[in-house]
Amino acid sequence: MENEEQQQAELLEKMRHSASHVLAQAVLKLYPDAKLGIGPAIDNGFYYDFEFSEPIEEEDLKPIEKEMKKIIKQGLPITQVMMKREDAIEYYKKTDQMYKLELIDEIEGKELSFFITGENEFADLCRGPHVASTKDIGAVKLTKTAGAYWRGDETKKMLTRIYGTAFETENELNTFLKNQEEIENRNHRKIGKQLELFAIIPEIGQGLPVWLPRGYKMRRIIENYILELEENAGYLHILTPHINRSVLFETSGHLSFYKESMYPAMEVDDETYYLKPMNCPAGMMVYNLSPKSYRDLPYKLGESGTVYRYEKSGELQGIQRVRGFTQNDAHIFCTPEQLEGVINETLDLLDIFYKDVGFTRYKFRLSLSEREANPKKYAGDVERWQKAEDTLRKVLADRGEEFEEMPGDAAFYGPKIDIQAVNVFGKEDSVSTIQLDFNLPEKFNIKYIDQDGTEQEPFVIHRALIGSFERFFAFLIETHGGDFPLWFTPEQVYVIPISEKHHDYAKQVYDELHNAGLRVKLDDRAKSMQSRIRDAEKMKIPYIVVVGDKEIETETISVRTRKNKSEGLMKVQEFIDNLKEEIRTKEPFTPPVEENN
Amino acid sequence: MENEEQQQAELLEKMRHSASHVLAQAVLKLYPDAKLGIGPAIDNGFYYDFEFSEPIEEEDLKPIEKEMKKIIKQGLPITQVMMKREDAIEYYKKTDQMYKLELIDEIEGKELSFFITGENEFADLCRGPHVASTKDIGAVKLTKTAGAYWRGDETKKMLTRIYGTAFETENELNTFLKNQEEIENRNHRKIGKQLELFAIIPEIGQGLPVWLPRGYKMRRIIENYILELEENAGYLHILTPHINRSVLFETSGHLSFYKESMYPAMEVDDETYYLKPMNCPAGMMVYNLSPKSYRDLPYKLGESGTVYRYEKSGELQGIQRVRGFTQNDAHIFCTPEQLEGVINETLDLLDIFYKDVGFTRYKFRLSLSEREANPKKYAGDVERWQKAEDTLRKVLADRGEEFEEMPGDAAFYGPKIDIQAVNVFGKEDSVSTIQLDFNLPEKFNIKYIDQDGTEQEPFVIHRALIGSFERFFAFLIETHGGDFPLWFTPEQVYVIPISEKHHDYAKQVYDELHNAGLRVKLDDRAKSMQSRIRDAEKMKIPYIVVVGDKEIETETISVRTRKNKSEGLMKVQEFIDNLKEEIRTKEPFTPPVEENN
Repeated sequence: MENEEQQQAELLEKMRHSASHVLAQAVLKLYPDAKLGIGPAIDNGFYYDFEFSEPIEEEDLKPIEKEMKKIIKQGLPITQVMMKREDAIEYYKKTDQMYKLELIDEIEGKELSFFITGENEFADLCRGPHVASTKDIGAVKLTKTAGAYWRGDETKKMLTRIYGTAFETENELNTFLKNQEEIENRNHRKIGKQLELFAIIPEIGQGLPVWLPRGYKMRRIIENYILELEENAGYLHILTPHINRSVLFETSGHLSFYKESMYPAMEVDDETYYLKPMNCPAGMMVYNLSPKSYRDLPYKLGESGTVYRYEKSGELQGIQRVRGFTQNDAHIFCTPEQLEGVINETLDLLDIFYKDVGFTRYKFRLSLSEREANPKKYAGDVERWQKAEDTLRKVLADRGEEFEEMPGDAAFYGPKIDIQAVNVFGKEDSVSTIQLDFNLPEKFNIKYIDQDGTEQEPFVIHRALIGSFERFFAFLIETHGGDFPLWFTPEQVYVIPISEKHHDYAKQVYDELHNAGLRVKLDDRAKSMQSRIRDAEKMKIPYIVVVGDKEIETETISVRTRKNKSEGLMKVQEFIDNLKEEIRTKEPFTPPVEENN
Repeated sequence: MENEEQQQAELLEKMRHSASHVLAQAVLKLYPDAKLGIGPAIDNGFYYDFEFSEPIEEEDLKPIEKEMKKIIKQGLPITQVMMKREDAIEYYKKTDQMYKLELIDEIEGKELSFFITGENEFADLCRGPHVASTKDIGAVKLTKTAGAYWRGDETKKMLTRIYGTAFETENELNTFLKNQEEIENRNHRKIGKQLELFAIIPEIGQGLPVWLPRGYKMRRIIENYILELEENAGYLHILTPHINRSVLFETSGHLSFYKESMYPAMEVDDETYYLKPMNCPAGMMVYNLSPKSYRDLPYKLGESGTVYRYEKSGELQGIQRVRGFTQNDAHIFCTPEQLEGVINETLDLLDIFYKDVGFTRYKFRLSLSEREANPKKYAGDVERWQKAEDTLRKVLADRGEEFEEMPGDAAFYGPKIDIQAVNVFGKEDSVSTIQLDFNLPEKFNIKYIDQDGTEQEPFVIHRALIGSFERFFAFLIETHGGDFPLWFTPEQVYVIPISEKHHDYAKQVYDELHNAGLRVKLDDRAKSMQSRIRDAEKMKIPYIVVVGDKEIETETISVRTRKNKSEGLMKVQEFIDNLKEEIRTKEPFTPPVEENN
């Protein structure tokens, strides 16, 4: 199976690489003075870089694509030939292809590999491999153009990159394109902007998202929900400062093994401060504020704590990969006997939470030690590691969860369970982690007095039900495509009067809904009803209430759901009752099947 | 009146200064080898510094005080004499008073002023003034001892400072002492520790409070309440990062006029970041994310934003004066016509809020410009200043508020209203501020499109209903002495079973209260009932529910309020209804009159 998949992938790569040659051949046919850069296969497709004498537009791709299809249909053979260096140079000098000459300059050897399409209809300096004939390329599509510096060097000339893709069948190609469009439509940056949820403002800083009113509203609803869930499970919540003295990170060890991810030091009076990259050290200090006994355990100390970590600017991505983020953090201190119950309870909370936010598919990854291969890697006691790993495995197995064991993947300080949520495209993301820690308790001298009066070290578990709010929201937005469950969507209802004479009734309906505790907006702007409905749809408002003569006469409202399905006339109270039930049950929204399917 | 008060204050100061001489005289009588430092009158009393050959304890103050009273009763005259420098030096050499010799060294002149008590029973180098006779000192009391370095210089010897106070009558003295005790009992640091609300942990950092679970619970309740209050008034809430790029503070001007209050810069890649000392610059950037029209105003943008400001370590004080704190911040952007309405609405919110948290006494301070005296001081347009100052004054006057005008007290960027809350001892604290700003809109090019299509600069108002949570909580704790109104007190009810056989019933009561949404704790620890009640009282729990045989039999509970008043037996449902009503009305708790009064 593995092998078959790999063969399939290799075939696709050859097809796409060959398609890039066909693209260059087609371009030279239509633009004989175009200069060729390079043209590799890439993930999901291929590209070729050109220098055109006149800039081309997206609409110029159609004729090029048509020309490519002609070439593919001809079934021209694609064959490798070895050309003498002098001949190759001569060939490119003659055709005035200076970028190719530059490439030859960097290749060693007396003979250079070329691939020839047909009877020398096209020749390209290339190591291959390729399909045997252009007819093997399958279904092809040019997707977009972009600017790209020659050799990726911004001091060099900007070339035009033409992207495309190829699949074995038209059907596969169409599925892929539709999927791409859907992924683009669900992109958290796109939806985040469209729904005004968050913004990255360059003057404030890279990777430092600003939560805008609608996004912050959602965040607060979910944060309050989480804190209540945890409170009911006996968690205590604290809030510690964003900067801590260096002594904390010396004690924890972060300054020796994590410093490159930390922001630079700040010297104040005689003290050195750091933005905290983790909430743990301060959490340990709070545990130690008073002596603990076995009666105090399990002690569950939560913090919605904002941390700052340096990431290379190239790695930042929307709110998914950022430099400043808030973790729904907690540290649980327990006895060995309590460990199994604590892990089970954590997974119970996770099940409730995932169900309520509409994450229906998730799986588990269990990262374990590999003591034989790395006997000196691991902090803490061997027996405690054994106990922890056995317990994590047992709990997952007893619950009947699907999980993968990853021996050797555990950090030096303890084994962990990663919870991988799977979005609608099958994209996995590690949203939550349950991490044992055998390092910090030792460093911070974390103890409790046991029943027999002896001092013992508790098991310490870090867990973040929601991971970070930022990463979680990126995944949440992409999972729901912005069509959030009613209970946490920032605005639940827009009330739209058809014309000015319906304003009073609309206000009356608005008041009833508002007083019932719904998040409602009255849109009585002087714009056409249709355009106000479109605005509401753009903001993905779950319910649009329209009122006009008919509604006033019958003392009702007209209700439309997302995706424009009309629910017809109903009484305001009935509507309120329906929504309250939907909120209470935290029913996730399922978009109706599109009409064109 | 002013004059009379001043005379009274001068008299008290003379009495207390004379009392310090009497203290020194008494000490020399009982400890003839004691060395004298200095002995001034201070706020609320006096002190004298001594070097004793053997350390003295608090209990040694009684005999000294007794000796002082004897001297006072004798009615010895206190008279000024001018002594020749040589004679003064001779006198102190003879009596081996080296600290006095050091003092003489620093005084110029051939003759030095001394005050003699009685027939030379005591003489002290002193400029006075003093009362004429020891019998004029009134009622005297020594209060405590403390260590104090000679001349406040820690490289010098540590002396023993004896503190005391004096009043004209025993009655006034007793009132003062009782008041002092009450102030001490209400001290926010003391109560914060006792009720486990917050902690300052030296390893985390000075002036960087940690909110402990009970304090954070209160903070969250009040924060959610405030945000809801603001939401209902049309505020939008955002959250911006704790670090911002330097360009923001260059634009705002903070880096030129506020830098010494900012934490040091952090260099990341090619950019410079600062911990934000204020939320304003990022707020202005958010306003500017999209163009605004007059229809969008008033635009009210709130942020519960944590800021960091450097304060000298000597000035830090509990959670009242800190380095990191969270402001309940908002920026309101409005048209000139909306200004009066906006200020009125802000004061309306403030009235609701102050009433609900139990601040019953507050007054207003209006800080205005003084353009004649400082024509170049003020940013922005003269007419806009005039309009703003007139509006602030008019609103306060129209509302019939007591307010004081402070010409010249306005900052360069705008006039403001400070709201001074007054606590039970009459201590005032500026809890909220409504500040106009004519600087930032200019710096950040803040505009809106008016009805006539022209671009205009809105009025920008900063306001913090709650000031900072830290400062507000310090005042809140001292106002209520820890006896918080039920609606935000961290724990509302403790359920205490008399003995083990009542555990089941207690659990049943606990469940009923918990399910009714009350914050309740079941204390069934194996400790005596009395000691568990004392623990609950120590934590100032509003309601203690005790259950035993009698309660089980009658299906009731016994309820005691704070201060140990019994409300007798009642049904659980009746109790729940009472509490819900008390929470709904946000009734502040009034402690019953103490029995010993």
